[in-house]
Amino acid sequence: MTQNLMEKTPVTLLGLGAMGTALARAWLAAGHPLTVWNRTPARAAALAAEGATVADSVAEAVAANSLVVVCLLDDASVAEVLDGTDLAGRDLVNLTTGTPEQARARAGWADGLGARYLDGGIMAVPPMIGVPQSGGYVLYSGSQDVFERHRETLGVPAGTTYVGANAGFAALYDVALLSAMYGMFAGAAHAFALIRTEDIDPAGFAPLLAGWLTAMAPSVHQTADQLRSGDYTRNVVSDLAMQVAGTPTFLETARQQGVSPELLTPYFELMRRRLTEGSGKEDLTGVVDLLLR
Amino acid sequence: MTQNLMEKTPVTLLGLGAMGTALARAWLAAGHPLTVWNRTPARAAALAAEGATVADSVAEAVAANSLVVVCLLDDASVAEVLDGTDLAGRDLVNLTTGTPEQARARAGWADGLGARYLDGGIMAVPPMIGVPQSGGYVLYSGSQDVFERHRETLGVPAGTTYVGANAGFAALYDVALLSAMYGMFAGAAHAFALIRTEDIDPAGFAPLLAGWLTAMAPSVHQTADQLRSGDYTRNVVSDLAMQVAGTPTFLETARQQGVSPELLTPYFELMRRRLTEGSGKEDLTGVVDLLLR
Ligand SMILES: NC(=O)c1ccc[n+]([C@@H]2O[C@H](COP(=O)([O-])OP(=O)(O)OC[C@H]3O[C@@H](n4cnc5c(N)ncnc54)[C@H](OP(=O)(O)O)[C@@H]3O)[C@@H](O)[C@H]2O)c1
Ligand SMILES: NC(=O)c1ccc[n+]([C@@H]2O[C@H](COP(=O)([O-])OP(=O)(O)OC[C@H]3O[C@@H](n4cnc5c(N)ncnc54)[C@H](OP(=O)(O)O)[C@@H]3O)[C@@H](O)[C@H]2O)c1
Repeated sequence: MTQNLMEKTPVTLLGLGAMGTALARAWLAAGHPLTVWNRTPARAAALAAEGATVADSVAEAVAANSLVVVCLLDDASVAEVLDGTDLAGRDLVNLTTGTPEQARARAGWADGLGARYLDGGIMAVPPMIGVPQSGGYVLYSGSQDVFERHRETLGVPAGTTYVGANAGFAALYDVALLSAMYGMFAGAAHAFALIRTEDIDPAGFAPLLAGWLTAMAPSVHQTADQLRSGDYTRNVVSDLAMQVAGTPTFLETARQQGVSPELLTPYFELMRRRLTEGSGKEDLTGVVDLLLR
Repeated sequence: MTQNLMEKTPVTLLGLGAMGTALARAWLAAGHPLTVWNRTPARAAALAAEGATVADSVAEAVAANSLVVVCLLDDASVAEVLDGTDLAGRDLVNLTTGTPEQARARAGWADGLGARYLDGGIMAVPPMIGVPQSGGYVLYSGSQDVFERHRETLGVPAGTTYVGANAGFAALYDVALLSAMYGMFAGAAHAFALIRTEDIDPAGFAPLLAGWLTAMAPSVHQTADQLRSGDYTRNVVSDLAMQVAGTPTFLETARQQGVSPELLTPYFELMRRRLTEGSGKEDLTGVVDLLLR
C-alpha cells in the first residue's frame, strides 16, 4: 500500500516535551507532513530522522502551515513563544494545559491577531497517544469551524470530543475530570492505608478495589439526572440520613487501625451539613451545592 | 422442573430491614426453608405469605436451624438481640455492618458461647440482592469451615469472597472499599460543582466522568504493585513532581469558577508533603504512608 502524503493535512507543532513528542510521532506515523519547533533544538533531532521538518524559528514554523498546534508547558510559555509572531489566518490549536480563564483570554488574544482559536485538554498520558484502543482523548472547545475542518487530523493522536464554543470549556472539563480522579485516588489511598495496617497483600486487595470503583462510577449518571431535575430524592437507594448514620463506622475503623481520616472527613462533614440543612431523604447530590459559593 | 426443598440448607434469619428482607426473598426464591424473626413483627408478615416460617422469639428462631444469619442495624442491636440466647453448636453468620474491632470481639463472644463465627460485609444495596448480574457480593472472614460448609447457601443472595480467618478482615475490606468510594464521590462532587458554574448539561458531562473514572480505576493495580515492592518509582507515567506542579491549575480553576476546593486540598497537601520529604520521581503512592501513624 502506498500513501499519497499530499492528501494529509500538513501540521506545525510547537513544543516537543513528553506530550509534544508523542503527538509528533502519531502524525508522522499517519503520514502527515510535520514541521516542528522546540526551544531546546536537541529534542527535535530524533524527529527529523523520522521525517519531520525542523524549523529554525517559531516564525518559520508558523509560516509553514495553516494548522498550528501548540503543546507547551503552560500558558506563560505559550505567551513567551508566540507573542510577536504573525498568526494572521492561522488555525491555532492550543493543547497546553491551563485554566478556563487562560483559555478564554488566549482565544481573545488569538482573535485580535486574526487567528482562529481552538483550545484542547488532553485526557491521556504520552504512552496512550497514537494508540486507538487506549481510551485517551482530547477535549476541544472554541472555534467549531477549526474543529470540523481538522477533525480527521486532530483525531490521529487520540479521540476527539468537542464540548462547546466557549473556549474555556475544554479546560473546565479537563480540570473537572482530573479533579474527580484525584478524589478517587484520595479514596484509594485511604483504602490502601487501612489494609496496610494488617498482613494483607495489596495485590490481592487491588482487584476488589478496582472492581468496586468501576461498579460505582456509573452512579454519576444518577447524580447528573438529579442535578438536572433539581430533585435530589429521585431514585435514591441509600438516603443521606442512612449514609450519614454510617460515617462513624468509617471514622472509628480508621481510628482503630491508626489511619488518619483527613482524606475522608471533608466529604463526611459536607454530608452532615447537608443533612442538617436539608432532607435526609435526598441522595448525596446536595453536597455539590455546598461547594458553590 | 420440580425442586426438592429438603435438599436446600434451611436458614434462620434475624433482622428484616431493607437488607434482611432482600436476603429473605433471595433464599425463599431459591427454595431454601427459611425461619425469620424481626423485632417489629409486622415486617415478617409479607414474608410469611411468601413461604417463610415466622418465629415468635429469637430463641425459637435460633433453635430452628443450625445456620443462623444476622442482619441487624449495628453491633449494639446484635448484642441486644442475641445476648442470653443459646448459640451452642450454631454456625453464626453476621452480616451486620461494623468495625473490624467489633467483628473480632463478636467472634470471641460467639466462640465463648460454643458457636462458629463468620463475619460478612455486604458490598451491595438491597436491589442488587438475588440478582446474579448485579456485581454485588459479600466479603466474608472468620471461620473458613462455616464459609465452606455454607458456600452454596451464602452464594444465593450475592457473590461471595472469603478474605481470611481474621474475623475483622471482612469489615476492614468493606470499610476500605466504601471509603474509596466516598473519595470518588467527593471528586465527582467537585467536578459537578465546576460544570454547574457554566451553562453545561450535567447529563452530557456524566458519560465523560463515568468513562474517565472507569479508565483510571485500574491504576490501583500499579499502586498495589508499588506498595508490595516498596519501590514507588516503578512504571511511573506522571511523576509526583509533575503532578504537584499541576495542582495550582486545579485550585486556580476552582477559585475562578467560585467552587470551594475543600474536597481537593487535603490530598494535594499530602502530595506536596511527600514531595518535600521524598523523591519527585515517585508515583502518588507515598501518600498512603503519610496516612499511617
Ligand atoms: N505529559 C502528560 O502526561 C500530559 C498529559 C496531559 C496533558 N499534558 C499537557 O501537555 C503540555 C506539555 O506537557 P509535556 O508533558 O510535554 O511537558 P514537558 O515534557 O515538561 O515539556 C514542556 C515543553 O514546554 C517547553 N517549554 C517550557 N517552557 C518554555 C518556554 N518558556 N519557552 C519555550 N518552550 C518552553 C519545553 O521546551 P524545552 O524542551 O526547551 O524545555 C517542552 O517542549 C502541558 O501543558 C501538560 O500539562 C501533559
Ligand atoms: N441497606 C443497604 O443498602 C445496606 C448495604 C450494605 C450493608 N447494609 C447493612 O445491613 C444491615 C441492615 O441494614 P438495613 O438496610 O436492613 O437496615 P434497616 O432497614 O434500617 O433495618 C434495620 C434492622 O435492624 C433491626 N434493629 C435495629 N435496632 C434493633 C434493636 N435494638 N433490636 C432489634 N432489632 C433492631 C430493625 O428492626 P425493626 O424492624 O424492629 O426496626 C431492622 O430489622 C446494616 O448493618 C447495614 O449497614 C445495608
